[in-house]
Amino acid sequence: MLSSDLPAGPYPAAEPGPASPTLQPSGQAALAPAGPFDAGSRAAVYRAIHTRRDVRGEFLARAVPEDVLRRLLEAAHAAPSVGLMQPWNFIVIRSASVKAEVHAAFVHANEQAAGLFPGERGRLYRKLKLEGIRAAPVNICVTADRTRGGPNVLGRAQNPEMDLYSTVCAVQNLWLAARAEGIGVGWVSIYQEAELRASLGVPDRAAIVAYLCLGYVEELYSRPELEVKGWAKRLRLDDLIFREHWGWTRGAPPRADHAIVGHYRTIEVGRNET
Amino acid sequence: MLSSDLPAGPYPAAEPGPASPTLQPSGQAALAPAGPFDAGSRAAVYRAIHTRRDVRGEFLARAVPEDVLRRLLEAAHAAPSVGLMQPWNFIVIRSASVKAEVHAAFVHANEQAAGLFPGERGRLYRKLKLEGIRAAPVNICVTADRTRGGPNVLGRAQNPEMDLYSTVCAVQNLWLAARAEGIGVGWVSIYQEAELRASLGVPDRAAIVAYLCLGYVEELYSRPELEVKGWAKRLRLDDLIFREHWGWTRGAPPRADHAIVGHYRTIEVGRNET
Repeated sequence: MLSSDLPAGPYPAAEPGPASPTLQPSGQAALAPAGPFDAGSRAAVYRAIHTRRDVRGEFLARAVPEDVLRRLLEAAHAAPSVGLMQPWNFIVIRSASVKAEVHAAFVHANEQAAGLFPGERGRLYRKLKLEGIRAAPVNICVTADRTRGGPNVLGRAQNPEMDLYSTVCAVQNLWLAARAEGIGVGWVSIYQEAELRASLGVPDRAAIVAYLCLGYVEELYSRPELEVKGWAKRLRLDDLIFREHWGWTRGAPPRADHAIVGHYRTIEVGRNET
Repeated sequence: MLSSDLPAGPYPAAEPGPASPTLQPSGQAALAPAGPFDAGSRAAVYRAIHTRRDVRGEFLARAVPEDVLRRLLEAAHAAPSVGLMQPWNFIVIRSASVKAEVHAAFVHANEQAAGLFPGERGRLYRKLKLEGIRAAPVNICVTADRTRGGPNVLGRAQNPEMDLYSTVCAVQNLWLAARAEGIGVGWVSIYQEAELRASLGVPDRAAIVAYLCLGYVEELYSRPELEVKGWAKRLRLDDLIFREHWGWTRGAPPRADHAIVGHYRTIEVGRNET
């Protein structure tokens, strides 16, 4: 719709920081009790985590009120960020015409992607519903401004990707809060980035981290949809946990290294010579 | 401690998938009711989100039992992943000698990082506690196996970083579950990656996404620690939300683009010529 060099912002006038930032005289004053939750509250947190799904086909047309959306964005903004960088922006999209442009960016990419899966896998791929862009009342594009906080951000010197990871933490906060509100979220990762960037006017300094579709739902899959539909299987958690060292499950090296190269087969990639 | 070409795995023998995967006759059977949580449960989810902190100095020596750790890892494993790729592994570290090696990788990196901040900022930086590697009873290195699921993973063709993002979702799930359990988590991002990779034997095909320190806590900061200690300030959420398009707060282009380049100052980076 619009070129990517359109203006961003507007940010408020800069607020001066303390002339000489110092540690507070006592850190104690800022600490608050933080024990475990009671059983019911703990169960609620686990329920959000375990019943959250990536939603494509279950969105209701019912509008998402601004105050509910605000709670979700506040949850996102409460995420951890490297050096308190808070690199995220949230582009909230309710307009049908903007959604239609984004949907076109999905369709172009999905045509390419389907070609990666030959034969039976390709036929199954084409049956899967992989986005709810137009059906979802609200879309949110979540970005990470790589320049925020200046060139040196505490904790980012060795790993410049930390700002992207912080932004993903914000997405997951929003997703779990949405589950508690009865709102489903779908993360669309299939799109031509240049098209999406141009449609939304995202400047080069900001990475597009996630494109989310949101709407109320009455039902969700009880297992991941790609598992239900025969695309992939859940891995056993026990196979993913190591102790003290990569590949060690009982404090000693195993005989061989197996990489999971497909959901249904593994290959041996190394042997323990010790 | 050990070279990085030590064996990985062991993964179980491959389990054959359906010869001809097809959509289930009725997706309905796999759907379950999923409305909003009651007020108390919703509040519990928000409480976990808003009181979660990045912990460095508050870890208690009390051991984290295996069954509690298991719940945290199950929460992580319940994260969304692109194409149900589940790229994560979790290296659980309780050994003091492994922690000491990782701590050395932190110290070497932190000496370099401190040099990035001159003058008053540098003095403040050196006062900050940025890790709890040895104090925390449990450390977890969370990795993303870039080869899992084979070369073509659904939803990853246009954005190969999606597997890293999925792994961050697992970290945030674990972090919020830990808050509900009364366990604090600190994400250490300051380390020499080559040193950490060698110490833990992480093979090249796996990215190190997060190094986490875990332990029970009695207190947490009521605001982000870097805010309490004068390093950085919380940004106003209203300044981070756009409508329909980057930079639009009221459905129309603003006059100029301001990038937040520091926590206390902004620069004008563009002007609306329309």
